Amino acid sequence: MDALPRHPFDPRDDDKLREECGVFGVIGVADAANFVALGLHALQHRGQEAGGIVSYDPVQGFNSARRFGYVRDNFTKQSLMETLPGELAIGHVRYSTAGSKGNTQIRDVQPFFGEFAMGGAAIAHNGNLVNADELRRELIERGSIFQSSSDSECIIHLMARSLQRTIPERMKDALRRVEGAFSVVAMTRTKLIGVRDPLGVRPLVLGRVGDGYVLSSETCALDIIGAEFLREVEPGEMVVITGTTVESFKPFEPKRPRFCIFEHVYFSRPDSIIGGRSVYETRRQIGVELAREAPVEADLVCPVPDSGTPAAIGYAHESGIPFGMGIIRNQYMGRTFIEPTEQIRNMGVRLKLNVNRALIRGKRVILVDDSVVRGTTSRKIKEMILDAGAAEVHFRIASPPTAWPCFYGVDTPEREKLLAATMTETEMQHHLGVASLRFVSLDGLYRAVGVAQGRDARQPAYCDACFSGDYPVKPTDMVAKGFKLAEPAE
Amino acid sequence: MDALPRHPFDPRDDDKLREECGVFGVIGVADAANFVALGLHALQHRGQEAGGIVSYDPVQGFNSARRFGYVRDNFTKQSLMETLPGELAIGHVRYSTAGSKGNTQIRDVQPFFGEFAMGGAAIAHNGNLVNADELRRELIERGSIFQSSSDSECIIHLMARSLQRTIPERMKDALRRVEGAFSVVAMTRTKLIGVRDPLGVRPLVLGRVGDGYVLSSETCALDIIGAEFLREVEPGEMVVITGTTVESFKPFEPKRPRFCIFEHVYFSRPDSIIGGRSVYETRRQIGVELAREAPVEADLVCPVPDSGTPAAIGYAHESGIPFGMGIIRNQYMGRTFIEPTEQIRNMGVRLKLNVNRALIRGKRVILVDDSVVRGTTSRKIKEMILDAGAAEVHFRIASPPTAWPCFYGVDTPEREKLLAATMTETEMQHHLGVASLRFVSLDGLYRAVGVAQGRDARQPAYCDACFSGDYPVKPTDMVAKGFKLAEPAE
Amino acid sequence: MDALPRHPFDPRDDDKLREECGVFGVIGVADAANFVALGLHALQHRGQEAGGIVSYDPVQGFNSARRFGYVRDNFTKQSLMETLPGELAIGHVRYSTAGSKGNTQIRDVQPFFGEFAMGGAAIAHNGNLVNADELRRELIERGSIFQSSSDSECIIHLMARSLQRTIPERMKDALRRVEGAFSVVAMTRTKLIGVRDPLGVRPLVLGRVGDGYVLSSETCALDIIGAEFLREVEPGEMVVITGTTVESFKPFEPKRPRFCIFEHVYFSRPDSIIGGRSVYETRRQIGVELAREAPVEADLVCPVPDSGTPAAIGYAHESGIPFGMGIIRNQYMGRTFIEPTEQIRNMGVRLKLNVNRALIRGKRVILVDDSVVRGTTSRKIKEMILDAGAAEVHFRIASPPTAWPCFYGVDTPEREKLLAATMTETEMQHHLGVASLRFVSLDGLYRAVGVAQGRDARQPAYCDACFSGDYPVKPTDMVAKGFKLAEPAE
Amino acid sequence: MDALPRHPFDPRDDDKLREECGVFGVIGVADAANFVALGLHALQHRGQEAGGIVSYDPVQGFNSARRFGYVRDNFTKQSLMETLPGELAIGHVRYSTAGSKGNTQIRDVQPFFGEFAMGGAAIAHNGNLVNADELRRELIERGSIFQSSSDSECIIHLMARSLQRTIPERMKDALRRVEGAFSVVAMTRTKLIGVRDPLGVRPLVLGRVGDGYVLSSETCALDIIGAEFLREVEPGEMVVITGTTVESFKPFEPKRPRFCIFEHVYFSRPDSIIGGRSVYETRRQIGVELAREAPVEADLVCPVPDSGTPAAIGYAHESGIPFGMGIIRNQYMGRTFIEPTEQIRNMGVRLKLNVNRALIRGKRVILVDDSVVRGTTSRKIKEMILDAGAAEVHFRIASPPTAWPCFYGVDTPEREKLLAATMTETEMQHHLGVASLRFVSLDGLYRAVGVAQGRDARQPAYCDACFSGDYPVKPTDMVAKGFKLAEPAE
Repeated sequence: MDALPRHPFDPRDDDKLREECGVFGVIGVADAANFVALGLHALQHRGQEAGGIVSYDPVQGFNSARRFGYVRDNFTKQSLMETLPGELAIGHVRYSTAGSKGNTQIRDVQPFFGEFAMGGAAIAHNGNLVNADELRRELIERGSIFQSSSDSECIIHLMARSLQRTIPERMKDALRRVEGAFSVVAMTRTKLIGVRDPLGVRPLVLGRVGDGYVLSSETCALDIIGAEFLREVEPGEMVVITGTTVESFKPFEPKRPRFCIFEHVYFSRPDSIIGGRSVYETRRQIGVELAREAPVEADLVCPVPDSGTPAAIGYAHESGIPFGMGIIRNQYMGRTFIEPTEQIRNMGVRLKLNVNRALIRGKRVILVDDSVVRGTTSRKIKEMILDAGAAEVHFRIASPPTAWPCFYGVDTPEREKLLAATMTETEMQHHLGVASLRFVSLDGLYRAVGVAQGRDARQPAYCDACFSGDYPVKPTDMVAKGFKLAEPAE
Repeated sequence: MDALPRHPFDPRDDDKLREECGVFGVIGVADAANFVALGLHALQHRGQEAGGIVSYDPVQGFNSARRFGYVRDNFTKQSLMETLPGELAIGHVRYSTAGSKGNTQIRDVQPFFGEFAMGGAAIAHNGNLVNADELRRELIERGSIFQSSSDSECIIHLMARSLQRTIPERMKDALRRVEGAFSVVAMTRTKLIGVRDPLGVRPLVLGRVGDGYVLSSETCALDIIGAEFLREVEPGEMVVITGTTVESFKPFEPKRPRFCIFEHVYFSRPDSIIGGRSVYETRRQIGVELAREAPVEADLVCPVPDSGTPAAIGYAHESGIPFGMGIIRNQYMGRTFIEPTEQIRNMGVRLKLNVNRALIRGKRVILVDDSVVRGTTSRKIKEMILDAGAAEVHFRIASPPTAWPCFYGVDTPEREKLLAATMTETEMQHHLGVASLRFVSLDGLYRAVGVAQGRDARQPAYCDACFSGDYPVKPTDMVAKGFKLAEPAE
Repeated sequence: MDALPRHPFDPRDDDKLREECGVFGVIGVADAANFVALGLHALQHRGQEAGGIVSYDPVQGFNSARRFGYVRDNFTKQSLMETLPGELAIGHVRYSTAGSKGNTQIRDVQPFFGEFAMGGAAIAHNGNLVNADELRRELIERGSIFQSSSDSECIIHLMARSLQRTIPERMKDALRRVEGAFSVVAMTRTKLIGVRDPLGVRPLVLGRVGDGYVLSSETCALDIIGAEFLREVEPGEMVVITGTTVESFKPFEPKRPRFCIFEHVYFSRPDSIIGGRSVYETRRQIGVELAREAPVEADLVCPVPDSGTPAAIGYAHESGIPFGMGIIRNQYMGRTFIEPTEQIRNMGVRLKLNVNRALIRGKRVILVDDSVVRGTTSRKIKEMILDAGAAEVHFRIASPPTAWPCFYGVDTPEREKLLAATMTETEMQHHLGVASLRFVSLDGLYRAVGVAQGRDARQPAYCDACFSGDYPVKPTDMVAKGFKLAEPAE
Repeated sequence: MDALPRHPFDPRDDDKLREECGVFGVIGVADAANFVALGLHALQHRGQEAGGIVSYDPVQGFNSARRFGYVRDNFTKQSLMETLPGELAIGHVRYSTAGSKGNTQIRDVQPFFGEFAMGGAAIAHNGNLVNADELRRELIERGSIFQSSSDSECIIHLMARSLQRTIPERMKDALRRVEGAFSVVAMTRTKLIGVRDPLGVRPLVLGRVGDGYVLSSETCALDIIGAEFLREVEPGEMVVITGTTVESFKPFEPKRPRFCIFEHVYFSRPDSIIGGRSVYETRRQIGVELAREAPVEADLVCPVPDSGTPAAIGYAHESGIPFGMGIIRNQYMGRTFIEPTEQIRNMGVRLKLNVNRALIRGKRVILVDDSVVRGTTSRKIKEMILDAGAAEVHFRIASPPTAWPCFYGVDTPEREKLLAATMTETEMQHHLGVASLRFVSLDGLYRAVGVAQGRDARQPAYCDACFSGDYPVKPTDMVAKGFKLAEPAE
């Protein structure tokens, strides 16, 4: 409700899908909030808009701080961190939530906190609930007062209404009512809690640091604090951690897991390990698959930095065509909320990328990018490359065509704005004006993540709804608003 | 919960009682929020810590802005006010609330907003609920999630749980459950609502501006926007105003009114009219009473600025002793949250007041102040006056000894810290080290506010609990925490 | 040069003359900058736009900080004051300087600093140089690079070009070249220096605090730090103070002093002592003179707060008509640089003043104000008073008609904008629409400041150019720009 | 002089040499300051601490804005850029200057401005003057008042004292007095001026945009505004550009050019073209030279990101060993002035870099970095790589050992802190604890920049003082302070 400055100019490439959140929690170490700050810094790629930390100290009780902007600009200051004492803390970084389209307010920034009869609890949620509208309506009718526009707040209100006597039990109650994707990190005065939804769409890992424990969206955030990776929290599992013990529960009906395959393609950091696989290596392998599926004669394999680099390395290695950095990224871009001059806004992609003209001139160039969403950036890059004197431009995309929106915690444009929703691969090639355009196949992608036989259409091992339209959890609220699901293939 | 900067140094004289809130609302004029900003500026003396405005516009819905600091520093900016469109708006200024002792957070800043099944509503509350702890416990047990530490939030949660079908009816339901002092200004999408508790402890007035209506804590805020004063909202009355009509309800069991007599003594602005009486004139009259009750031979009547001035004028007039400004106030003091150097903090009262040495030297001085709370400032002022060469210092206080804390919306120290709670008038005189010290009598005060026969102890016309210990509403929560009420006089 | 935010809205009454600066310096006490901060706070009425402090410490050398805004908001912070160590410091508050009309930049904020071959020096200047344009042109031609638009910077450049071997000697050289009004406080690494121009137009006093010495524009700033008033620096005197000695020099040709009489009327604080006279008492006495010169039958003497109050007290006392506060000032006004909404800007004087309607209604009111400049505020106040139901409004002004601009360190409108420059007293009365309007006579004013026989036109004891057009120093630059001096009276 | 917050924590790797400045100027296009902002954004790698822009408009005169922080955070705001109108503007980004070690103040931020008898001029300087101390002393003795601690301010003061009648002529006079490295961009009211010192140590290029002209430190900043590269400003050349003409002057005695070879190694952006050579290609070629000079058996060539990447690509290509991103850089690092918690500060390099453990484990890794300065970061990276399970770590450095400080505009540690100043290559290898450590030879480096026969010791084609100790301009001030030059090799 609080009216905040808009941000008409956002230097983040709006032509990417964006993970909406990262979560992190620590128990059993002094100044836990400092560790959370470091963990969130390592998870910043999962959400750059805002971050929050809640800590608990027996003397000072619960404390929290929530800020817009980067973790490093807020949660590293002595003066702020001193207000977050205790050996137990959780945190959250966010891009934007289901509720507030581009106009986030500080009260939408997690973790959320609730005071229950048996004490307080805070939760941080990565994912998206597909029945949040329905739940919210029902809760308001029963007298809940919502403070944010976030779907995640439903969880707190459901917990408040549970008849169970402990917070973990109330959380089980609440999470059994929600549908969608959720990797939740929560805390009470004495416990750190982690839960993943039954399909395990979003990641969550468990680590050990000193005498304490850590929960994190990704392993790269364990590395930064020197924590040891123990294992992933399993799909459908709840772990309840005190300083000394990790209890495991399975509160949901078991289902076949459907981890988000796009975490491998783009969302996760290349130095993270998911499902025992290096994200970097998977991406490199996608490049290898692409080189096999879509070879082309050329002089240079050039990544669209920085996310296309591992696949470009793989493509170059497999094809034998030299790898080179034909596009240079300005390191000093970043996120900003200011309203720039018209002239500067129009610079668009040139503020971020420049062509390495000397390298490109006269060459047949293979550009390797991770995905094509709206196609707007791809067109501009192609133009820059041709302006710089490239002989030919071939696009190779390290994911299948993105033809469907994600409802499980990823910021996607409406379906009509997805290039692949309205065009065939050939049409896209003409639209982008390139000599050739090829996407890795869905089977190729499955092979790259280690499923040797490719995708099993009857029971796919991953959630690949953004490519296939096969939604493992029905997007209830969206269907109520008129979203049309794909006809099931016969 | 959000940890905010502390304010160890607060240049406001902590040796005063402080009104905790001012409320204001407008319906039926374009850019209503601008009027609210002006009204809150005129009510700034009722609360300097923070302010908030909620507005409603049919297209843009509810919008709100809440800020720490003065109204003039926040709610006058074009850029902010543009985010608060509409013809209906309410606002609130606050000093601090019951819940958060000296550590207010932005989420404690009113108006509070609630989304109900039949639409949203915002409320702004002046006063204090004496059974808020009890209500909060009960509401949490039933699943309410509190977002602030404010007692006023209970009203929103009680409304959410009401079974009534309209917001005004739900508000009645809610307010029938609360005890204490409340002057509430609220709004729905179409209505401006004002309510005073059955005793009418806090003020609330109704005015007309253009084709619209105004609710305000005091009449001085009507003047600033050129509004016409219509009448006071009566004790126990609820007014429900649309653009064109004012409906009046009496939802509570009728009681004899007990308006706060300290509003006359100190809280209200001297240019306000309360109960048909000019506050300035009442204060001047207290000075007259004081001169009659406690005459003394002297050369100069000198106010402790600025609040002691009207009584000093009355005292001087009645006694025939010349009036002079023996103490000069630095106009550039103000509120600030910064942590000053030790040296500067120690300057204390000298940062704000200086003695007009040439006027004081060699004179027998009567200092007229509005009240003595802890007595710390009185001592320092006496020392400054004697240092400057005064022959004698006589204190005359324009209120009876403040011996009891207020639980109805005023920030008072704990009882032990009130000088008059532990000392007789003679002991206080010695403690302050002055030639004489006299307070106006309670009867004298009643005469000054127009009750010719003085106070009727069986059914006093005002709430004077801070002087008499006679609390018109039992302070439930405080009694539960061990507060001892006065033995009823036989 | 640095483009700063403009301030189209400035709540300061632009219908007043404004002193442009206050200066303060301390030597020989630990943490001298803290004392300077307190002194500047007490001198804030002499300049609210910005302030600066320079300190010197043998280890850390010269340090400085300059800030826009109030002293209390900047120079009280531990973190800032820690950057200003040492036992020697000077400071300056400013309203605006000759050079930059309403668009001050941080580099115009004094003290100015210069590095000379024999070490650094800083100076703070109250007053205005009337030949600054001429000097600046000459200095630029010789290779000086100016950093500010301030006339005071000429002094530093003249010092840099002096052939003398010590800083005090160079300062003498420099000040012998400048014309106009200057009360200067300066410092080297070991000395605190004070100088007044030969006419002594602006004030400067010497005090003692602990084992050290203080220089200040006014005595009220000695009081705040508990310093003892020693004496005024004399017109044409330079004092050079080390920790232990005060040397006195007379570097200029002697002249008859012409202290600014308006310091008594308005600029100085009422609790200051000037020329052995209490400013408060002088103002009270002006009211007495006014009552004698311009009596009128009425019911109430009412000051325009706060500056008109002492004269109103005097008028009431002399006339026997009751004194009352018919106009109430909002204490929460202040200076702000923001651009407010149109609606709020239009509120003008109502943001600051409100009529005490109950007191005014039906009465014949004598309004006592300190001066009339443009007359815009006077008109609005008259309207407010009549709207509130006053029977008659009589203006009594505690200074003669202000018909000439000041060129000696006071911010005055151009001559055409001064009401008294274009109208007779009767025309002004009609223009303001009041029942009567009377100014104290120039003789009456001289009597009030202690010159029993009134003004001696051949050799007036004060600078009264703003009333008489008799400029004691020819305003060279302004005359060059076409300003017409008054014909000398035969 | 103004005391600013220190920055004890600076996430920039202090184990790099840092270019100290970038300069940019535009004439003949509307809203020239916008172009300058874009240009400075592209040059941000040359200085991240602060930036400034001066523009000139015939109506509004000279305007300037100088800010700490990134260009994108300041000079993109509509509100700021509107204060910089005109078709002529210059700008500067800076890291730190000779004068102020780690405690920059806003007045040290360029461009500097001077008002001369014939009008104003602004200058922006990349480089460092080696006789600035001497010049400053001399100028102060003659009466110049310095405002900053920057060596570059000498140029303005020398210009002010010149007897020439035009600004370009005065600039020639001034620059003939200074020694050291200077690429200067300056402006008068009608001219854009560029000058390089006789050796041409720092870069400066001339471009054309629309009907106007551009001067820039590097070509990458021409690309961002779509400007056409015309040519380099030659060593010892001054270009004076009006809207329509480019005049060329040679005000200095001709010398053999000695361009800074480290611009190729590290300072310049890889997408810039220097001396007709692509910086990227040169770096790649250094990798090729390294692979030839210092081959080793290994499994992976891994760059230290981002600056080591091109050389690593070259090394991998030449050696046939696979290229892989074994170290992942956190994109959300950046510059910040805050004081972090001790715990967070201690994280050091881990805040910025993480090992791609899955890729590294069990491998013999060749780490390619651009340089070794103190060696502190190299040690930490080696530890991270070994902790992650690498079998062996081999360092290959794309520059010769950095054994001498730079005095020509680069921020270098004191000589004793340079690892190569105190250790042989073998000692360094042991100190860093790596299996092998090899630097490219000076001849190899010369070959990579296109000098086929390697370095000619009698008349080297480049300034390579940081490697060779052969300083082409005697560092006068430093020698006066006791710096010992290398014994000339016999």
